[in-house]
Amino acid sequence: MTDAARKIMQRIDVLAHISDDSHRLTRLFASPSMQRANALVSDWMREAGMKTRVDAVGNLLGFYPGSKPDAKVLLLGSHLDTVRNAGKFDGALGVILAIACVDHLNQRQTRLPFAIEVVGFADEEGVRYQTAYLGSRTLAGTFIGKDLKRKDAAGISMRDAIRAFGGSPTRLRYAKLQPEQLIGYLEAHIEQGPVLEKENLSVGVVTAIAGQTRARVDFIGRAGHAGTTPMDLRRDALCGAAEFVLAVESFARIQPGLVATAGEIEALPGASNVIPAEARVSLDVRHAEDSIRQAAFEVLKEKAAQIAQRRNLRFLVATGHEAPAVACSEKLAAQLGDAVKRHEKRLLFLPSGAGHDAAIMAGITPSAMLFIRCKDGLSHDPRESAELRDVRVALDVVNDFIQMMARNA
Amino acid sequence: MTDAARKIMQRIDVLAHISDDSHRLTRLFASPSMQRANALVSDWMREAGMKTRVDAVGNLLGFYPGSKPDAKVLLLGSHLDTVRNAGKFDGALGVILAIACVDHLNQRQTRLPFAIEVVGFADEEGVRYQTAYLGSRTLAGTFIGKDLKRKDAAGISMRDAIRAFGGSPTRLRYAKLQPEQLIGYLEAHIEQGPVLEKENLSVGVVTAIAGQTRARVDFIGRAGHAGTTPMDLRRDALCGAAEFVLAVESFARIQPGLVATAGEIEALPGASNVIPAEARVSLDVRHAEDSIRQAAFEVLKEKAAQIAQRRNLRFLVATGHEAPAVACSEKLAAQLGDAVKRHEKRLLFLPSGAGHDAAIMAGITPSAMLFIRCKDGLSHDPRESAELRDVRVALDVVNDFIQMMARNA
Repeated sequence: MTDAARKIMQRIDVLAHISDDSHRLTRLFASPSMQRANALVSDWMREAGMKTRVDAVGNLLGFYPGSKPDAKVLLLGSHLDTVRNAGKFDGALGVILAIACVDHLNQRQTRLPFAIEVVGFADEEGVRYQTAYLGSRTLAGTFIGKDLKRKDAAGISMRDAIRAFGGSPTRLRYAKLQPEQLIGYLEAHIEQGPVLEKENLSVGVVTAIAGQTRARVDFIGRAGHAGTTPMDLRRDALCGAAEFVLAVESFARIQPGLVATAGEIEALPGASNVIPAEARVSLDVRHAEDSIRQAAFEVLKEKAAQIAQRRNLRFLVATGHEAPAVACSEKLAAQLGDAVKRHEKRLLFLPSGAGHDAAIMAGITPSAMLFIRCKDGLSHDPRESAELRDVRVALDVVNDFIQMMARNA
Repeated sequence: MTDAARKIMQRIDVLAHISDDSHRLTRLFASPSMQRANALVSDWMREAGMKTRVDAVGNLLGFYPGSKPDAKVLLLGSHLDTVRNAGKFDGALGVILAIACVDHLNQRQTRLPFAIEVVGFADEEGVRYQTAYLGSRTLAGTFIGKDLKRKDAAGISMRDAIRAFGGSPTRLRYAKLQPEQLIGYLEAHIEQGPVLEKENLSVGVVTAIAGQTRARVDFIGRAGHAGTTPMDLRRDALCGAAEFVLAVESFARIQPGLVATAGEIEALPGASNVIPAEARVSLDVRHAEDSIRQAAFEVLKEKAAQIAQRRNLRFLVATGHEAPAVACSEKLAAQLGDAVKRHEKRLLFLPSGAGHDAAIMAGITPSAMLFIRCKDGLSHDPRESAELRDVRVALDVVNDFIQMMARNA
């Protein structure tokens, strides 16, 4: 008998070859490769005793019945789409691991007090239409109708893409799951960060999906000749921005759980012999608690104001995208934690700094996430990597979680 | 009788209308507008009693004989070309003021123990062929022959442009002035910096044209997801670069006469939600003394190394263009200073952070420069501005300087 964790790893490898591109993994929403991926994964679902269907948006669902016909449903899953030039674990691992859990039950001919439905979401990354979570939004009933008009790089509207895939743009609303029929959603996913590796743990339990504030901070000083303007007569906008970048870093360092990043910077006019008249910095602030994130953003704006005043610069802050945090179900997370304690030397709770389908699913049912260690925190990169032993721990944990849910049902 | 300084200002205005562009001042090397500028300015030269000629590269020269036929020559002048969308004082003021000085002598029918030759250099800015000082290099005998192959944006070679202008690419070498026939070169020029304005002075005497080191400093860290990578596990290259920008600023602030500028910056990959893996900063360091500039550059490299080490980043420094400082003639500067003292409440010596024809002419004859206050230190900009009263002081100073030279000859 093949070791179940090893089988997961093999399937990850097989699935990674199903790509829109020939030499790298790119599997976009409603693409030919998603069609083939759904076909392959539904084979695996059927092997594990599930009845499969593809819904109106292209989500693949595999149903494993409970002991009674009217049993409620535990959802397990993740997404099957990828970014361009992706790693093979992001999304795929959560779907394949869920199938392995059902296979475990099916091989023992076990029926539980609840049904299990494994979901392979059609779109989480949002690469094709620059709008994420098309799959989970459809199941949660929060699909945004006007998104159907969006066009991809080739000019194909989302409506036409869904039709060509075999879905139904007009029936998306009927694909919504009924919250009263669900008992929860569990998603296993690589961490996409370095915390578990640093803590030397295979898995951790997610407390919340962090909220995010994006902003653009603009410092405005005065241009000048780099040769003829003495240091004490300068109003160098880039020096102001540099001070701000460091203020962001040092403030975030002392706030537990806060991350704040300046990922983009621009100096204008941007010539080596001209003192920058203007400098623009992007700001990305995240925390699992909205009040802490919002307070941090206020502090950082105040720091920008102080820097600008001290340096005789003007400054502007333009707040962009703002997303509230989504808490995981405390009850499910606690139960997942109990399962983790059986297989891991230590139970670590951690927030997710990245977005996940679980954040959408939390709108209709208690949701939880299990993070699995990945190498160097690397994701959205072909070097993305997870170890067999960690996948084995994750599989054991989710199997146990399901058993504990069954006992408490 | 028209006030001579006022006449200079009027001529500055007239000359500013001679442009390659219709709505802004752009007068490039060997262009139709330079042809017209040479024609107009040579009229003014002849009015002032000079014999004019245009040399093989297109420099306009006006000769005012001395008391004896074999008298040596004092050169006065600046350049007649401009940058694109230029101000009207940069270059033109030095030529027109020199003509006014000769006019002053001519009206009094004064002959001096030396001849005066006023030069309107054909190219100082280097806009058309990305190589500066074509005019002064020709007179100094340091014209670089292979530059003739350079092409402008329209594909016209420098050789063809000089021919079309009426010059002679093959005779450039014969246009060199003979050092033994010269007694010196004096250039009046707007400061292009804010020092005189800050010191509330009309004019100042230049000690040296600063040397320059250009470099590119590159910090390399590790990319990471802005949401999932805790602050203490980051190797953020932009934070390293920001620290360096501030280290450059604070070090230059405490070194008298040193200016150091980061004018360009780039973060890679340059996405708001990705921790910068790499950050590149331009560095421009200038000082009137080469040893101080070179030592400063070494200190700044060491600071970059320390920052990189502390932050676990790699760093690279690529040194680009390096130009040594050019000292002005101490004797001429002292004599110019004596003239300044008669008309100015205080004598200020200052270095020039920008390059000038005087730096080239210093190769063949003792050279000096008089800086004239300009508004807000602004240059290479249509808002460039100098006041009548400051031009009047400059004119009085140069007139007196000539008289003192004559007395000491």
